[in-house]
Amino acid sequence: MTKWRTALTCIEQNKILVRGYPLDEVMGRLTFGEAIYLLLMGEVPSPAIGSLMEAILVSFIDHGITPPSTLAARNTATTGAPLRACVAAGVLGFGRYHGGDIESCMQFLDAGLELVRKGMPYREAAKDLVKRWSTHREPIPGFGHRFHTRDPRAARLFQMALELEIEGQHIQMIRAVEILMAEQPDGAQPVNIDGAIAAVCGDIGIPPEIANALFIISRVPGIAAQAAEELEREHPMRSIDPGSHVYDGAAQRRLPDKRR
Amino acid sequence: MTKWRTALTCIEQNKILVRGYPLDEVMGRLTFGEAIYLLLMGEVPSPAIGSLMEAILVSFIDHGITPPSTLAARNTATTGAPLRACVAAGVLGFGRYHGGDIESCMQFLDAGLELVRKGMPYREAAKDLVKRWSTHREPIPGFGHRFHTRDPRAARLFQMALELEIEGQHIQMIRAVEILMAEQPDGAQPVNIDGAIAAVCGDIGIPPEIANALFIISRVPGIAAQAAEELEREHPMRSIDPGSHVYDGAAQRRLPDKRR
Amino acid sequence: MTKWRTALTCIEQNKILVRGYPLDEVMGRLTFGEAIYLLLMGEVPSPAIGSLMEAILVSFIDHGITPPSTLAARNTATTGAPLRACVAAGVLGFGRYHGGDIESCMQFLDAGLELVRKGMPYREAAKDLVKRWSTHREPIPGFGHRFHTRDPRAARLFQMALELEIEGQHIQMIRAVEILMAEQPDGAQPVNIDGAIAAVCGDIGIPPEIANALFIISRVPGIAAQAAEELEREHPMRSIDPGSHVYDGAAQRRLPDKRR
Amino acid sequence: MTKWRTALTCIEQNKILVRGYPLDEVMGRLTFGEAIYLLLMGEVPSPAIGSLMEAILVSFIDHGITPPSTLAARNTATTGAPLRACVAAGVLGFGRYHGGDIESCMQFLDAGLELVRKGMPYREAAKDLVKRWSTHREPIPGFGHRFHTRDPRAARLFQMALELEIEGQHIQMIRAVEILMAEQPDGAQPVNIDGAIAAVCGDIGIPPEIANALFIISRVPGIAAQAAEELEREHPMRSIDPGSHVYDGAAQRRLPDKRR
Repeated sequence: MTKWRTALTCIEQNKILVRGYPLDEVMGRLTFGEAIYLLLMGEVPSPAIGSLMEAILVSFIDHGITPPSTLAARNTATTGAPLRACVAAGVLGFGRYHGGDIESCMQFLDAGLELVRKGMPYREAAKDLVKRWSTHREPIPGFGHRFHTRDPRAARLFQMALELEIEGQHIQMIRAVEILMAEQPDGAQPVNIDGAIAAVCGDIGIPPEIANALFIISRVPGIAAQAAEELEREHPMRSIDPGSHVYDGAAQRRLPDKRR
Repeated sequence: MTKWRTALTCIEQNKILVRGYPLDEVMGRLTFGEAIYLLLMGEVPSPAIGSLMEAILVSFIDHGITPPSTLAARNTATTGAPLRACVAAGVLGFGRYHGGDIESCMQFLDAGLELVRKGMPYREAAKDLVKRWSTHREPIPGFGHRFHTRDPRAARLFQMALELEIEGQHIQMIRAVEILMAEQPDGAQPVNIDGAIAAVCGDIGIPPEIANALFIISRVPGIAAQAAEELEREHPMRSIDPGSHVYDGAAQRRLPDKRR
Repeated sequence: MTKWRTALTCIEQNKILVRGYPLDEVMGRLTFGEAIYLLLMGEVPSPAIGSLMEAILVSFIDHGITPPSTLAARNTATTGAPLRACVAAGVLGFGRYHGGDIESCMQFLDAGLELVRKGMPYREAAKDLVKRWSTHREPIPGFGHRFHTRDPRAARLFQMALELEIEGQHIQMIRAVEILMAEQPDGAQPVNIDGAIAAVCGDIGIPPEIANALFIISRVPGIAAQAAEELEREHPMRSIDPGSHVYDGAAQRRLPDKRR
Repeated sequence: MTKWRTALTCIEQNKILVRGYPLDEVMGRLTFGEAIYLLLMGEVPSPAIGSLMEAILVSFIDHGITPPSTLAARNTATTGAPLRACVAAGVLGFGRYHGGDIESCMQFLDAGLELVRKGMPYREAAKDLVKRWSTHREPIPGFGHRFHTRDPRAARLFQMALELEIEGQHIQMIRAVEILMAEQPDGAQPVNIDGAIAAVCGDIGIPPEIANALFIISRVPGIAAQAAEELEREHPMRSIDPGSHVYDGAAQRRLPDKRR
């Protein structure tokens, strides 16, 4: 019988090789974010790409109790289910309308870049894109947010991409769309974090299905923390109204000097 | 109506505070591993604890196609399910016999340290522990592995704890048990990675339920990578025999000089 | 290599035998409820047991939008996830405090029947049980309900068991506990549907782990219907407050004459 | 604030109305299959439709250890996870290639019936359909099976539909396609159970999304039974090779006379 193949991790007795590197050698030498890149992409990232990976993963780590995926996890926790069941329920809520924008925004940007490669200026390609999506009454993927009129995570990610000198065609494309939309009377929807991640992933060569995996990986700590808080602070079988919560954690503060 | 409370993340328009820190300020300044610690524990970790967090998260990142949780994820992927469904199915396989050892090993070590605090030497406490668990025919949690006779990840984690000077009572306790078991005719089961993580978490003040969350978080990239590989390399609705696979990835290699 | 074994369903080309019966012969001859019993217990149920199976499965079919498991499914649906993901998220909410009472009530009743078999009268055994559980500050499993002061489903199931002449020791035991609790100043908690199912399952020889499976099976249609209604009637990514809903379905009515 | 609405189940103290009927009145009067129809479709089914519902639900109840969804559930069970986690993992495997055919076959048949309604004979409509699907290199949904060259469940369901006199346009349409394919040199793929259910559901007015729910509901008992068997008969953390199993259950037998 033909054997099936895997290229990720080689297990032998007392030896674990992730993409060829002994896992015990990787421990303490690559960060978790770099190891995630290694596992998914096959190679150790350059320092610049490693920094962006960390920033992408940090950017999605939690969004409070508002996302339905988080509420699914909390509703599971209140039944007394174990943490892994709560996390699984939360992950299932990364549906079409929640996190799905990264993949569709990458396709959107690639559709524009196809025109650019044929010689069309970015601005014209952006016009063409927006017109096409509007004709199908599809929202422009990667723009707008339920809560934020300006997504602070997107701005920070673009700034890092600029400083680390990895800005490329995808970021140029999404900026052209953003400028175009800002000019429209009703269209002042800024780039959201999904859009920023889509553009940065495009520019550093991460394909859509891996970008999608990054989104899932990045939010799991938030889901787990929320479920753990529910299990610890609340009584079982409560009725969870997302509108009637209040934040009672640490007041706004700055990172310690060494970290800035 | 009384409002319910959350201390994790504060969401206001155009502002996301994780444990008080603006998320855009955290991006590029804390690694993903440090941000996970911040979210779960409430404070930015010290450099030593941050390094251990990264090592703990990296140590569990993948274990090839052998774990049943990974096979559950691959069996889900072969039906054409989306990646998030595969990840959820995989996470559900972190059951009593798979990953559950961290929490029970922490309880095991704490039971020993209770004796130590009453004045019993570590060696005597270890004897008492092993006897108690053996009476109930329970396996000693944190020792032994299906594949490995010596877990390279555990050795590396203990070495890092030593170098970073965070070794404490829990590591002393687990070492006392290991020495005791090595002396027994049939008991030469070394500490596994679950045991090492349990001891290190105990020494840096991470409670069992958070250690449990760390285990889930650390393996999600592996589950996602395995499911993504299944979706990409294999045909749908195949019958997956774990015994008939072969590794065809990168040959064993060393990290680049700068990383060592 | 030794082969592993299954006794449930035999698959050969163009032939499917469930517990020995050709599935196409079972279709149209056993109801779904009877086929579930056949699959789980290995034999076709007697008419009386078949009727109880249907009643047990019907009794749990839905409980409106109030259970956290249902809210987990609806929160998953609002993200645009497919129906199977919503059902999975709902099933994960059958935790310790939700549905778990069937299994613990069976153990509770068996503990009492052990005393009865040694010659203790039911009333004395009930006293012993209640005292033991109260000492550990455990709630009596199978009694009380978040919403109902008298569970109409439990009364109906006991009545059916009486009419079908399958009442046995477990029902006697739970009744003895109910009478005892009614006499206590603060303890007037009536048997709930979990308790009734536990007692009936005990009397017809269904073991706890199968009773547990019946609970999951019985509620899946409710979870699926609730998720399907969410997908059809509501807009995506809404914030679901369980307290602010209203029922707008059919008014109370009686079954058609032929069905009574 | 506007209240959101549900038309499924009304919960008041000591009262549970499913689609208007008191649940305790439904117990013992409707079978589980009929109650499922009531919950999903809003009305008590006619006797003929009730019989078809039971047959549809029974037809999918289990398919041995071969489906990947079942293997996902067994791989979850072997980690020591609770039954509900195993069931959830199994349900997640009802992906695009497994069970998804019911919905796509209903769309396929509706596409054909649109032509019929415009005056095209069934045979011509079938030719047009097969040509269209072949052009897009899509497999014809509802035809063919991994194991069976003739699906005994499909034949039985069609026979029941005939006897119960509910045959309609959808069954006529799928038969026209079947005849056409039988004439093609390589195309002798008979209708499978997905196709038969799609056609019958079409003829009794069940919409695709509800047919999809029926598939999930019908297989949950099989998933649960397989996981329960794994938990009972096998040792934890085993490596599950689907190819090396053997059936050791009841030999082929006939239903008791009264049931035939």
